[in-house]
Amino acid sequence: MEWRHRHLFDLDDWTREDIERVLALTSEIEGILNDGGKALPSLKGKTLVNFFLESSTRTRVSFEIAAKLLGMGVINWAAASSSMAVKGESLKDTLWTLESMGVDVVVVRSSWVGAPQYMARKLRRARVINAGDGTHAHPTQALLDIYTAWKRFGSLEGKRVLIAGDILQSRVARSDIIGFKKMGSEVIISGPGNMVPLNYKALGVRYEPDFAKAVRESDIIYLLRVQKERWQVNAIPSDYEYHLSFGCSEETLREARGCAVVMHPGPINRGVEIASEVADGDKSLILEQVRNGVLVRAALLYLYLGGDA
Amino acid sequence: MEWRHRHLFDLDDWTREDIERVLALTSEIEGILNDGGKALPSLKGKTLVNFFLESSTRTRVSFEIAAKLLGMGVINWAAASSSMAVKGESLKDTLWTLESMGVDVVVVRSSWVGAPQYMARKLRRARVINAGDGTHAHPTQALLDIYTAWKRFGSLEGKRVLIAGDILQSRVARSDIIGFKKMGSEVIISGPGNMVPLNYKALGVRYEPDFAKAVRESDIIYLLRVQKERWQVNAIPSDYEYHLSFGCSEETLREARGCAVVMHPGPINRGVEIASEVADGDKSLILEQVRNGVLVRAALLYLYLGGDA
Amino acid sequence: MEWRHRHLFDLDDWTREDIERVLALTSEIEGILNDGGKALPSLKGKTLVNFFLESSTRTRVSFEIAAKLLGMGVINWAAASSSMAVKGESLKDTLWTLESMGVDVVVVRSSWVGAPQYMARKLRRARVINAGDGTHAHPTQALLDIYTAWKRFGSLEGKRVLIAGDILQSRVARSDIIGFKKMGSEVIISGPGNMVPLNYKALGVRYEPDFAKAVRESDIIYLLRVQKERWQVNAIPSDYEYHLSFGCSEETLREARGCAVVMHPGPINRGVEIASEVADGDKSLILEQVRNGVLVRAALLYLYLGGDA
Repeated sequence: MEWRHRHLFDLDDWTREDIERVLALTSEIEGILNDGGKALPSLKGKTLVNFFLESSTRTRVSFEIAAKLLGMGVINWAAASSSMAVKGESLKDTLWTLESMGVDVVVVRSSWVGAPQYMARKLRRARVINAGDGTHAHPTQALLDIYTAWKRFGSLEGKRVLIAGDILQSRVARSDIIGFKKMGSEVIISGPGNMVPLNYKALGVRYEPDFAKAVRESDIIYLLRVQKERWQVNAIPSDYEYHLSFGCSEETLREARGCAVVMHPGPINRGVEIASEVADGDKSLILEQVRNGVLVRAALLYLYLGGDA
Repeated sequence: MEWRHRHLFDLDDWTREDIERVLALTSEIEGILNDGGKALPSLKGKTLVNFFLESSTRTRVSFEIAAKLLGMGVINWAAASSSMAVKGESLKDTLWTLESMGVDVVVVRSSWVGAPQYMARKLRRARVINAGDGTHAHPTQALLDIYTAWKRFGSLEGKRVLIAGDILQSRVARSDIIGFKKMGSEVIISGPGNMVPLNYKALGVRYEPDFAKAVRESDIIYLLRVQKERWQVNAIPSDYEYHLSFGCSEETLREARGCAVVMHPGPINRGVEIASEVADGDKSLILEQVRNGVLVRAALLYLYLGGDA
Repeated sequence: MEWRHRHLFDLDDWTREDIERVLALTSEIEGILNDGGKALPSLKGKTLVNFFLESSTRTRVSFEIAAKLLGMGVINWAAASSSMAVKGESLKDTLWTLESMGVDVVVVRSSWVGAPQYMARKLRRARVINAGDGTHAHPTQALLDIYTAWKRFGSLEGKRVLIAGDILQSRVARSDIIGFKKMGSEVIISGPGNMVPLNYKALGVRYEPDFAKAVRESDIIYLLRVQKERWQVNAIPSDYEYHLSFGCSEETLREARGCAVVMHPGPINRGVEIASEVADGDKSLILEQVRNGVLVRAALLYLYLGGDA
């Protein structure tokens, strides 16, 4: 069955069945890798370009490893030394050039909200995968989060997901809220008042200002990174004070449900939103998220590029 | 039959037969790719180094994709963090090091005229391919231009090629003039007086200061990029005024021959040497040039490295 | 027989048998490459990350080519644009992220002495190979030096090795002293007094302040690079004066043993520690060292990652 989406911008136009298809294919890929990886599906001869206008090593490397698992060629397009930077080439012309050279999929990270959609409108043949656009969306992160939680709980139906921290500026939060709700979970948010969007009700979530209470009531405790590099002004009095109110410590977790898990998109700020003991503790799924990121991205590349099995 | 050239500096010592061999092999590679690419010739086990002393993403990526098509390994040598920059290693020693590590072909881009020749004298086994040296030569660009025009016209014998813009500083112009003339075309140049070399007659071309008239009389309208980053002083009054006199607009093209095509080495300056409507119009071969760049470079790598078919 | 070391920090805990096993495997790989390379051992599906916190092109590229020879995937981790630099991620978390993504071996270059050991303590599955840590150790350089000398002399038992230059700051000197001594060679050092460690006797070497005399008595003349970028103050009066006292010129070499060879870890400073005629002369093994670097590193990767033959 062909994949019905041409590009991946966000999960808002996905159905639950779409997500479940990604989960199933990822699970299949994980099984093949655990058996030595010989029977992996192949995208040999296809080329991915990592088109990163914003710095990121972890997401770029995750896509690079995923693509190479399937035998793809990978081009790392360097923004700083590119013809866009040096010779003033327009984004449109840069994309057409890459497409004409044979690039099949453009993985784009940009601080500009809507960049993936703009790029997709310009491309004729190549697919676009959003690897994070500004504060808007980060759908591959949400899918790897959902995969990780689904592997642990079997079903996400009726689970309560707490997303805590800087919701306002978080593309991860937005995509995760959409994705977990489609899977039947209930999502609540917590965080300092100045980090919560005024219109949070439009996201279909409940706001619980008392972080400790929210932790007690949740199955999945998803902590966001305090993104100091994004704040124009000092948004928190100090790391320590943030940690006291909204950081997840061992003490906070002691009140959590027995089955509760802790997740984080990384990179983590130890001692700020998460205590070291929690990050490295047995409730933490953080490194499983990283591992699953490679698997989910391989599955997505396969679906979007329609390789032969 | 073995390829008689050891290195690729420029086309001045090539025969028409040499060019035609590249055209034929490129055409063969294009055919194999259109059939799914399974029967591509192989240079597996060979290594290419992109040795770019001047910033360039498009040419570097074009070579990288071409090399990977043939199964080659690709090393991107980063000038800024190299032992040349950091530890003062001489160019000669850097080359010997790369050669000793097993590099088979050095693709060099440099602002220094004659760098490829100097490098070739130092290397013992590895081949050098000039990917642009200063204002001197850019032979792989010329070959992809010739291939693109040849595909369109069948033969270039007797065709009139107009090369317009900043001839003085253009390595593309020099290599294209040599190449198209070898293929039996007539070349005329146009552009502002301060952008035309005083000794243009030595290039075997005619200078037509009236751009619109030159367009009317030509089969191939080759527009050069206004390379503002190369001019020490303001060489043109403004983008707008350049466009009025030497930019190719839809209006200019209305007077052109029915079969005429528009070419450009990229990246384009929309609204300066070329109007957007022309760049994206049906006479434009610009994206075909980009696509053919990969194919021609694959053919060249194969010829110079003498792989097994 | 399994390889008994988990990580490669330095040669101090290696036995002579360990070194001889690397020499034998490297020699085997060299033989296979000379026969066309078809029977090379394979590490297909394994991933190496070049984790370079200090700039270095030559060692990075050497590892990259070695890894690709064995079919490995290679990730070049860019320190400057990484989450460590941009988002303040800890080294530990960066490593766990890479390991979770499936990286099998971390090749680390760092100005921080002990970085490889620290990293190895943090990693659970991936192996660490030290590609140079501060002024401490550079074991893969020592192994390629030993391989190169061993190929030339057949046995290193009883050979006299002179290591000359800036011993104090040289990680190469330290690892070479350890390695050559394990192979049964005698090591003497020479160099300006301010470049010799006060406790040189603890290294089990003799100090010969008269460079010309040391050259006359040695089989292997190993010249170190004057690392001006490492000195806080002017450590030598001038390049010329250094050359007069401790540079190896043709005149110096005229007094050397007939069988004597000249080695250097590169990049060389022509006219400082080594005269051009010597670097390019018939006693020089410098380019063989570079070539052997790739072979030795391939052998090491194979031993540490236990591939199937």
